[in-house]
Amino acid sequence: MKNKNYYAILMAGGVGSRFWPVSTQDFPKQFHDMLGTGETLIQKTFNRLANLIPEENIFILTNERYNDLVFEQLPSVTKRQVVLEPAMRNTAPCILYAALKIQKENEDAVMIVAPSDHWIEDEQSFSDNVQVAFDFCESNDALMTLGIKPTFPNTGYGYIEYDKEAQDNIKPVNQFREKPDYETAKLFIDQGNFLWNAGIFMWSAKSVISAFKNNQPELFQLFENGISSYNTEAEDVFILENYPKAENISVDYAIMEKSKNVYVIPATFDWNDLGTWGSLYDKLDKDSSENAVVNSKTLLEDASGNMIRSKKGKVVVVDGLNDYIIVDKDEVLLIFPKQKEQDIKKVLQNVKDTFGESYG
Amino acid sequence: MKNKNYYAILMAGGVGSRFWPVSTQDFPKQFHDMLGTGETLIQKTFNRLANLIPEENIFILTNERYNDLVFEQLPSVTKRQVVLEPAMRNTAPCILYAALKIQKENEDAVMIVAPSDHWIEDEQSFSDNVQVAFDFCESNDALMTLGIKPTFPNTGYGYIEYDKEAQDNIKPVNQFREKPDYETAKLFIDQGNFLWNAGIFMWSAKSVISAFKNNQPELFQLFENGISSYNTEAEDVFILENYPKAENISVDYAIMEKSKNVYVIPATFDWNDLGTWGSLYDKLDKDSSENAVVNSKTLLEDASGNMIRSKKGKVVVVDGLNDYIIVDKDEVLLIFPKQKEQDIKKVLQNVKDTFGESYG
Repeated sequence: MKNKNYYAILMAGGVGSRFWPVSTQDFPKQFHDMLGTGETLIQKTFNRLANLIPEENIFILTNERYNDLVFEQLPSVTKRQVVLEPAMRNTAPCILYAALKIQKENEDAVMIVAPSDHWIEDEQSFSDNVQVAFDFCESNDALMTLGIKPTFPNTGYGYIEYDKEAQDNIKPVNQFREKPDYETAKLFIDQGNFLWNAGIFMWSAKSVISAFKNNQPELFQLFENGISSYNTEAEDVFILENYPKAENISVDYAIMEKSKNVYVIPATFDWNDLGTWGSLYDKLDKDSSENAVVNSKTLLEDASGNMIRSKKGKVVVVDGLNDYIIVDKDEVLLIFPKQKEQDIKKVLQNVKDTFGESYG
Repeated sequence: MKNKNYYAILMAGGVGSRFWPVSTQDFPKQFHDMLGTGETLIQKTFNRLANLIPEENIFILTNERYNDLVFEQLPSVTKRQVVLEPAMRNTAPCILYAALKIQKENEDAVMIVAPSDHWIEDEQSFSDNVQVAFDFCESNDALMTLGIKPTFPNTGYGYIEYDKEAQDNIKPVNQFREKPDYETAKLFIDQGNFLWNAGIFMWSAKSVISAFKNNQPELFQLFENGISSYNTEAEDVFILENYPKAENISVDYAIMEKSKNVYVIPATFDWNDLGTWGSLYDKLDKDSSENAVVNSKTLLEDASGNMIRSKKGKVVVVDGLNDYIIVDKDEVLLIFPKQKEQDIKKVLQNVKDTFGESYG
């Protein structure tokens, strides 16, 4: 029996443009079966959360344009569970809004906020970590996060510094640190009490709302004004009018970096943000020449270290190409060196500028 | 007014497997717009011949399976003009058969036999050369061919040696030479009286039929037996029963190499057999980095000497690839070094063995 007070907010409004051409504005990464497992990333994430959380308590925060994709890919989800942002305002406004809705429905709610497009190998460990956090949140006024043990000095992630003295698995956070340069990242890792910020948060509705009230009084007031309309027919009108007035601000900056009651649990599961073709490549099975292939039927000669993806069953013949991203879609073919994967955003911009927005 | 005695036999039964994956058994090269001009090769060839020859006198020799493609791409062609080979028997049987049909229809016919999948730049020169040949054939018992001035010692073509002493533009042929090795090819070129055999023949119906009668009496008799049925409803039954009995033999070997009355006109036009992706590449316009692009919208970085083809309007992004054949089709993507283009036949065989005949 799953606990009726457990809730989740699945963040599904992003675009994942470094996964172009598969990920596009009309059909972003989280709605693709990036791993070739038969499930899209949002389906995998939803099912992972549903191990612990009643399905009807999993809310999807997304953009209007992905409404249909959500219902298509998560057929058990009802309209009540889909929270649409009428404007792009970063993570804080939509999390506050969703938390107020959930609190109105269930004032004892504890919840997890999680990205819809990450990869987590060990689902049991994930559930165990979340369970520990939920137990803590139920009896403490706490803002909690799961931190990932860094494996190398990655400069693409934010870091969480926790109290070195803490003996418990639940560790008080000293501070959040923005994406560091390489030397700083190395320093963080040497110090041993730094974790990657994976954007996974847990708290009670009461705690997160009170954090907003204390740290972002204006934002809080904006959404508090609509409380009588939430979960009623009047909600849409209020949100359409007021949401665009919200400040564009991340939840990290709005409350996590400013609060004193922040805790982190070092995750005991393998995690990957699937942020780039290279990180996807790392997670996929490889053939004997270290090629990772999704969907394609390949005939490879003198080809190694490639990330190859096409529509299902397409024959891909490659001769003499190493460490390339080869991604074929209906309207776009990308043949790009893996080590330049960070430039794919630029390529996408270039393609849109040259050939039109429809390709992005 | 075009001369009603002028006829053409367009050879359109080949497969062009070195142009895989674009050219396949179900949809071979001659039915594709290989040059991206808006016309398929057979359309270009048909229109080139139609400058001199009445359209209704252009016959298409092809395989049953390409019947629909012929009518689709050459809408003015009627059933009478399409001669279907019920079995693969090389060029001699079908040319003899077509010549007998044409002679029965018009005993004064002179005709050109030409491949449907070659590239010829200067159409006026081509017409002029054919006109000279037709004039000669009308008043002489002659088997004529257009020879291409060799530009390098190509070992992939047959050569025609003509009489060095001949002053006239119409030169008696000493002998046909099969594909030579490199040293021999160099020798041919040094001698100055060798031309490439492009498979373009011209003769009167009377001369070619008499050449078959003298040199291939059995083959001649086989098709002569059906003469009463040709161009009537009885023809199909006769051909279905008798065609498979024909010897598998090329027209070069059957009559050209054995006859004394063979002449060659050195062609005054640029010619390319479009035999491989590389020869197509040579004929296409290039961008400033020597990339030849058909149909694709490209964004190329550090990419030169590539032959790129996709469906129309597909965006192809390539970074760091030189001298490659990049061909994308619905079900197949080929990324292959240009210098290994002769191996594409092997690749095709490998793909068919591995993934099934449908890919070839």
